[in-house]
Amino acid sequence: MTTTQAKSGERVTAAVLIIGDEILSGRTQDVNLNAIAKYLATYGVDLCEARVVPDVEQEIVDAVNALRTKYDYVVTTGGIGPTHDDITADSVAKAFGVTAPEHPEIMAMLRERWGEPNAARRRMAHVPEGGTLVKNPVQGPPGFQIGNVFVLAGVPAIMRGMLDDVGPRLRTGAVVISRTVRVTGTGEGTIAAPLEAVAKAHPDLSIGSYPFFAPPDVYGASLVIRGRDPAEVDVAVEELVAALESVGVKGIERVAGAA
Amino acid sequence: MTTTQAKSGERVTAAVLIIGDEILSGRTQDVNLNAIAKYLATYGVDLCEARVVPDVEQEIVDAVNALRTKYDYVVTTGGIGPTHDDITADSVAKAFGVTAPEHPEIMAMLRERWGEPNAARRRMAHVPEGGTLVKNPVQGPPGFQIGNVFVLAGVPAIMRGMLDDVGPRLRTGAVVISRTVRVTGTGEGTIAAPLEAVAKAHPDLSIGSYPFFAPPDVYGASLVIRGRDPAEVDVAVEELVAALESVGVKGIERVAGAA
Repeated sequence: MTTTQAKSGERVTAAVLIIGDEILSGRTQDVNLNAIAKYLATYGVDLCEARVVPDVEQEIVDAVNALRTKYDYVVTTGGIGPTHDDITADSVAKAFGVTAPEHPEIMAMLRERWGEPNAARRRMAHVPEGGTLVKNPVQGPPGFQIGNVFVLAGVPAIMRGMLDDVGPRLRTGAVVISRTVRVTGTGEGTIAAPLEAVAKAHPDLSIGSYPFFAPPDVYGASLVIRGRDPAEVDVAVEELVAALESVGVKGIERVAGAA
Repeated sequence: MTTTQAKSGERVTAAVLIIGDEILSGRTQDVNLNAIAKYLATYGVDLCEARVVPDVEQEIVDAVNALRTKYDYVVTTGGIGPTHDDITADSVAKAFGVTAPEHPEIMAMLRERWGEPNAARRRMAHVPEGGTLVKNPVQGPPGFQIGNVFVLAGVPAIMRGMLDDVGPRLRTGAVVISRTVRVTGTGEGTIAAPLEAVAKAHPDLSIGSYPFFAPPDVYGASLVIRGRDPAEVDVAVEELVAALESVGVKGIERVAGAA
């Protein structure tokens, strides 16, 4: 359970699985995906895919199995409370082909808090066989890890608290550095050719263009250059600025990060 | 292309596919999923799954094919601009096994705006064979529909504008009604048993519990009852309130919608 560094150049990958009808119905704006993406980035772990599924056992089982076999890690959020729609622990157990008995440490926590817990609260003690607990420093019972899957709460403040106990368990990669070239007053159609030339010259970098516009007359694009070699990122930034200037683009700013 | 009503009781389903490295890197907080979920709900279309994939052709192809065969509709966002990372149109064409030639109407729009468009802008005219255009009332070129897949922009204001041309093409279902019973000062562990009893008595309704807490001392849960029969939703609300009161729960409010 100690952090190990991936071999140089080896990519460490992850997926997020958001479990909950409330995201798909539009009741709730998800903010957990963005928080997990930023958190994993600090460990050099690439978030490669995310899925949102409803509180339906077979959908959760299928998604967990699809993602855990494809990526190094999976982080799930939601569905670990005491109510009938909280079926994540049992579904993840099913995905792994194991049962989810009451975990003695969680049962002890529940007893300390509630006396003998009722049947609903005992559901929160379900942890798949072979799982280890993920600390909850905020409120309520812990999450858990089984294999390469981390099962966290859905309430954002609690989810973020639990993440602190996830990072130290990850095999980490080289952290991705981002820099942005922000162009105001020129559209993507003019930027595209110089941008593509720089992208082709640096196949190890990820270069994206994110247009912005504020009617009636503010528009442009943030050109984000991402890579694991800070020196190459810096070189690409300067090449891009020169390439843009060579086709007459004005209003160029260099910005730190993925601004 | 006119709206048709699904047969009574028949469910109309949809998935959302968000395409873009910027969501997975954490640079950008997605807001399109929530907007599409709310929009589809007004047409009685159930959003059943969402996925976020990077700007990688094979990932887009695989996700489009997985989702378009499983659900009645798929709505994609992102990747339809003129830069090298805008590969959605070509990827969706590949998923359907067709080419994506330049669409004459979009070429005409581009010529009107730019004179003879450069190679980058011509990318925005790519539409899979057999596709029809989705109007863009905001800025820039249109989206398109091919089969049961709608391909929209990623910039939220533009995406929302394009949605107006999606709804009229959908086979619609009965709209889902939501009501909420909000309980303050009681935890989910106490609420769970009466809630589950009501949920079991109404298998056609979707009943979810969404805890809230504001440290140090405000906590509780929003119990959201959703269904297509408003009378049954109302009955379930009253049954739930009675069941909660019967176990001594205080601080119960009835709230309209999924509050």
